[in-house]
Amino acid sequence: MRVRKKPWAAPYIKDHADLIVTDPASQLGHWQERFPSQQPIQVEIGIGKGQFIIEMARQNPEINFLGIEIQESVIATALRKLVESGLTNVQLVETDGANIDTLFAEGEVDKLYLNFSDPWPKKRHTKRRLTAPNFLVHYQKVLKKAGRIQFKTDNRGLFEYSLMSFNNFGMTFEEVWLDLHNSDGNVGNVQTEYEEKFSAKGPIYKLVAHF
Amino acid sequence: MRVRKKPWAAPYIKDHADLIVTDPASQLGHWQERFPSQQPIQVEIGIGKGQFIIEMARQNPEINFLGIEIQESVIATALRKLVESGLTNVQLVETDGANIDTLFAEGEVDKLYLNFSDPWPKKRHTKRRLTAPNFLVHYQKVLKKAGRIQFKTDNRGLFEYSLMSFNNFGMTFEEVWLDLHNSDGNVGNVQTEYEEKFSAKGPIYKLVAHF
Repeated sequence: MRVRKKPWAAPYIKDHADLIVTDPASQLGHWQERFPSQQPIQVEIGIGKGQFIIEMARQNPEINFLGIEIQESVIATALRKLVESGLTNVQLVETDGANIDTLFAEGEVDKLYLNFSDPWPKKRHTKRRLTAPNFLVHYQKVLKKAGRIQFKTDNRGLFEYSLMSFNNFGMTFEEVWLDLHNSDGNVGNVQTEYEEKFSAKGPIYKLVAHF
Repeated sequence: MRVRKKPWAAPYIKDHADLIVTDPASQLGHWQERFPSQQPIQVEIGIGKGQFIIEMARQNPEINFLGIEIQESVIATALRKLVESGLTNVQLVETDGANIDTLFAEGEVDKLYLNFSDPWPKKRHTKRRLTAPNFLVHYQKVLKKAGRIQFKTDNRGLFEYSLMSFNNFGMTFEEVWLDLHNSDGNVGNVQTEYEEKFSAKGPIYKLVAHF
């Protein structure tokens, strides 16, 4: 998602250092210290404006959520929502999700969410897709044993690629939905902003799998 | 597919015993003897009226094709098409595809086609789906090492189930198409009668995988 620069973003982020981390490498292996309760950690890579992770946190107070987003103007909007929510089980992280292996110790993460990631449709950009094997290696490292990845997209090509990639990597599928919003799988589905907007245009695909 | 009984079917089949086998167990391990040339054997389970297998045979003279179909009235129509085609690299087999493990010796089959199989949508009928693990065990036995299964369907629920089933069985995906007719995967696609008729109503799904 490309967005206009927001002049208020940087100072707002600085003012809320209790809810957002901007030097994430310093937290490696110590993420629990950012939360009031020691609970399983679930991570969303690419939170956009934060609707998904904040609603998930509201519904699951027994989980600590970490939301990663690289774009300052976008994460600042998510941060504002988080401040308004009063939730204490969400921490935001302003960084590139591609470097997730440098952010967490082995097995530190319970579950990973990839929502509507950039499809990078050109073949020469395959390695940039967040479901490519070069990323799966990192996810496998930071996820605990049998920890899950939950992936949603509306991009058919990316979903085809991801089914192949997860399977060829040796991952085990737990759920596959080819039209989530018209399926039993939609019960309890928490939508992202993007998902709300674009689900009318075609099917939403969902895959849950573990290593 | 349910069809009316055709009175001409039984005598027609009897008259063409060179092209159709009705006591298949007797051929176990000896299918090559039914063909003029010893060539890799590919099998379609549930050929319907035979359009797919006859066109495949026309395009691939270096392959011996075996078409299995349980319904006499249906296979008789396929047989008529085969007689008219003059092809010698297709043999039809009137039997229940569910018993494939009793028809072939280990590793006798090069590739297996499942086209628009009965979706058996009710949960209590899961085991009847031709992509259920109880069938995959049989396919694994009769397929040569790294032999492929190619599966097409227009039924979303069956395709979701089959992706799960193949993956959970440990099979390796080679191709996944979620809208075959609007994809690069459609190049060279040979359609079944059913596929021609129903592809306008929604996407055709395709999966190619090996054990």
